[in-house]
Amino acid sequence: MVTLKSHVLGQWHEARSDFATLVDPCTEAEIARVSSAGVDFGAALEFARRRGGPALAELDFASRGRMLLELARVLREDRDELIALSLLNTGATRRDAKFDIDGALHALTHYGELGLSIGERRWLVDGEGIQLARSARFWGQHLWIPLRGVAVHINAFNFPAWGFGEKAACALLCGMPVITKPATSSALVAERFVRSAIDSRVFPEGALSLIVGGTGDLLNRLGPQDVVAFTGAASTALSIRTTASLAGSGARLNVEADSLNAAVLGPDVVSGGETWAVFLRDVEREITQKSGQKCTAVRRIFVPQAQLATVRAELRDALARSVTGNPQDESVTMGPLATASQLQAAVAGVARLREEAGLVHGSGTRVDGKGAPSGKGFFFAPTLLQCDDPRAASAIHEHEVFGPVATLAAYDGNARFAADLVARGGGTLVTSLYSDDRAFVADFLQAGGAATGRLYVGSEKVAAQLPGSGAALPQLLHGGPGRAGGGQELGGTRGLELYMQRVAISGDRAIIERLAGSNEA
Amino acid sequence: MVTLKSHVLGQWHEARSDFATLVDPCTEAEIARVSSAGVDFGAALEFARRRGGPALAELDFASRGRMLLELARVLREDRDELIALSLLNTGATRRDAKFDIDGALHALTHYGELGLSIGERRWLVDGEGIQLARSARFWGQHLWIPLRGVAVHINAFNFPAWGFGEKAACALLCGMPVITKPATSSALVAERFVRSAIDSRVFPEGALSLIVGGTGDLLNRLGPQDVVAFTGAASTALSIRTTASLAGSGARLNVEADSLNAAVLGPDVVSGGETWAVFLRDVEREITQKSGQKCTAVRRIFVPQAQLATVRAELRDALARSVTGNPQDESVTMGPLATASQLQAAVAGVARLREEAGLVHGSGTRVDGKGAPSGKGFFFAPTLLQCDDPRAASAIHEHEVFGPVATLAAYDGNARFAADLVARGGGTLVTSLYSDDRAFVADFLQAGGAATGRLYVGSEKVAAQLPGSGAALPQLLHGGPGRAGGGQELGGTRGLELYMQRVAISGDRAIIERLAGSNEA
Repeated sequence: MVTLKSHVLGQWHEARSDFATLVDPCTEAEIARVSSAGVDFGAALEFARRRGGPALAELDFASRGRMLLELARVLREDRDELIALSLLNTGATRRDAKFDIDGALHALTHYGELGLSIGERRWLVDGEGIQLARSARFWGQHLWIPLRGVAVHINAFNFPAWGFGEKAACALLCGMPVITKPATSSALVAERFVRSAIDSRVFPEGALSLIVGGTGDLLNRLGPQDVVAFTGAASTALSIRTTASLAGSGARLNVEADSLNAAVLGPDVVSGGETWAVFLRDVEREITQKSGQKCTAVRRIFVPQAQLATVRAELRDALARSVTGNPQDESVTMGPLATASQLQAAVAGVARLREEAGLVHGSGTRVDGKGAPSGKGFFFAPTLLQCDDPRAASAIHEHEVFGPVATLAAYDGNARFAADLVARGGGTLVTSLYSDDRAFVADFLQAGGAATGRLYVGSEKVAAQLPGSGAALPQLLHGGPGRAGGGQELGGTRGLELYMQRVAISGDRAIIERLAGSNEA
Repeated sequence: MVTLKSHVLGQWHEARSDFATLVDPCTEAEIARVSSAGVDFGAALEFARRRGGPALAELDFASRGRMLLELARVLREDRDELIALSLLNTGATRRDAKFDIDGALHALTHYGELGLSIGERRWLVDGEGIQLARSARFWGQHLWIPLRGVAVHINAFNFPAWGFGEKAACALLCGMPVITKPATSSALVAERFVRSAIDSRVFPEGALSLIVGGTGDLLNRLGPQDVVAFTGAASTALSIRTTASLAGSGARLNVEADSLNAAVLGPDVVSGGETWAVFLRDVEREITQKSGQKCTAVRRIFVPQAQLATVRAELRDALARSVTGNPQDESVTMGPLATASQLQAAVAGVARLREEAGLVHGSGTRVDGKGAPSGKGFFFAPTLLQCDDPRAASAIHEHEVFGPVATLAAYDGNARFAADLVARGGGTLVTSLYSDDRAFVADFLQAGGAATGRLYVGSEKVAAQLPGSGAALPQLLHGGPGRAGGGQELGGTRGLELYMQRVAISGDRAIIERLAGSNEA
């Protein structure tokens, strides 16, 4: 069995005790073990801060962008190996594995190119210059200045490659050294990916550290220029948020948490059309892709009453074509859940939803997987429920089942009513809307836009090009209000804001404009 | 003695018990009492949410901007009365009172005009449209969509009018109803100001509520579309931040906390020049204005070793001209501290600083105030200390004395060294830099810009126009990293972001551009 190592103080560190064991979720065979026992977190932090920080801060955005592009090039060489490891470690299908790995490479490339486009600058300009007095001499300008601390990245198990890539790309481009901590259950993939990044020596020493296992007292040691970016369960996020030593340190905290994302079918969309087809295709994919283990997966589906029966029947048929099992078997289209406890939570979660909703498809229990030993593996088949009174219900809006599970419900076709139902989720990462009626989309945006971080509009004209509502493109903001954590990642330069301080600078216009670089434009 | 009232559920509410008493800080005579006993906070919140929220959300930015302008017009009529109340309630000089009240009117006017310039829109556009696929049809755009919740504003005692005005202007312009809670010690001024705003009926019913006294269980009742904006002590901020019911609600929290702001004199500036003069003028004002009770006041002054003796002598002379006492006496230039406990904290704070710094001016003890009864009033004279080893010191960087107190120390004239000293404060609201040397300013910005929210550069060409580093102009961001709370207020449209959700919308370009309003431009 492999023992995964941390990388701190510029060296690989192998623990000798307190191991957690990773298993193949299809066979439950032990495949690797992790522990951070013996890591001196204070020294690791100082090494990143004193060694990696100044080395990165010396460079401009273009130089760091070039490094990201080089890193993406190096990591791309490992793609096939990473895909194979994903199948073994996470039970991902090849398609799921590519979604994760290619997503990571895409984010690194996007931010590399963004760095080049920013150019040889040390800070970014925010908005226009401002005349502050009657004379035009006293002048103001806002700038984004990179922080001088360390970025601690705590990633979720479901995207071992992408989670590292999308966070590290933004932090490194801003010149902040990264300490990345993958989730234990998928650490075999994450460690392989980060190890390649470290071994490539593309970034200077101290720029990239890796912790496999627990974070020890790391979060108690942070300071006012440091950043914690966490992706994972809302309950873990809350405990991090309310830790006084962290909250009192002045370190920034960004949270992406699971949310009760919704898909809404507009009343203008009828069976047989292209918008209808893309709605069904997207929803089916959002339920089954990565076995529903995506923070952006659709958990609630709202359709006009008149279309309910048809949607239910077509969606049930689509889900019935899905084959759950070990992705090493080529006929399998959906893998297992990641861990025994994820399976247990999914079973318990569906039981809870069934207090308010009936089963349309699936059993709500563990199943045997195709190509896997009988009785082994954390398999859970695609599951569709229907709730007849979504206004009175609460669990379907509040309890996320982190698996291939969604609940279907009817609404009256009114955009405001749909927006109210969506908002019952307390804030989503993404809401998808399928309609060719501009007024419906505008009404929905006005009533419910503030309850989501991303609004994905599916319509006839773009049906062929849509990547699916669950894809977090680096060009678009990833993060949502309330329950979704209130964070902001990606979205081009928006994703850099977490790692910079917005500074208002005022003074003599000639001095300020020189600083802003507008003299050079 | 006046009993101040809360305004909830569209009515004035007078408590019958649990009163706190306000005193004139010059005479210690009782002048008013406050209590929120009997307020049903749940009902008050629902009234704001169900009545005020929809009424405001129906309007566009231009309509709400017009209301802010009308509110500023109405409140300006009370200016003389408010100034008189400030003298009585807070011991402010007339100049201090105007700084507070005119600042509030200026912020309301600024955001009123901003609303007009935004026009008949329901949301703001954030950045350019983005092509998301090879074809130009699949399109992305970021928007700022106003939240659909309630803004709870908890204000500090030092700016009873401005604190309300600057926060309410931003929230109301975004269409969020406001529940404002002034600090108790200066509630006589705040209540008068907010009462005029409510009685004017400029904004619809439910748009503006007032809580005098404690907030009861209000903060435990918030939801994912609500906002809390707090200004005050870092210790109170931490206890709000780590309250699980609030942190778990998904409500946003913005904090402006006291910080250890710094003024830095550049090595190029010599005695007798205009930059020297504006440095001295600013620093003296920052120490004495509002008796040093400003979150933006200068607490640390770093000057090159060669200039230390001259700065110390000239600053001591300037402070010696200040007259501490009851501002009802026209010869008085600086009033008392706000409360007995503020006085006690200032005395204890200077004692703590004296472990690392020697007294240059002032006694570190309570003094009698001119025009006030002997032995009465919370008077504390301007106090300057000097620290000989600012690198080894800790209290001067970490312990804020919220009064007319600052510590002077030398540095070697190197911008990076100065930036390191400033950063020892753990994040400031404002750092002021006095220099005509562009390279010095650029070096400082590069090394230390991320440790402050605002960098105020004083130089010869703008010496005559500078408003003082402590003035928080509505055009410029107010808020700083780390110790300063990590918040963002003001700064034009930046101040609206707290009350809006940034949403990435993607879909058919024709639909998205119509929504963004770029078709109408």
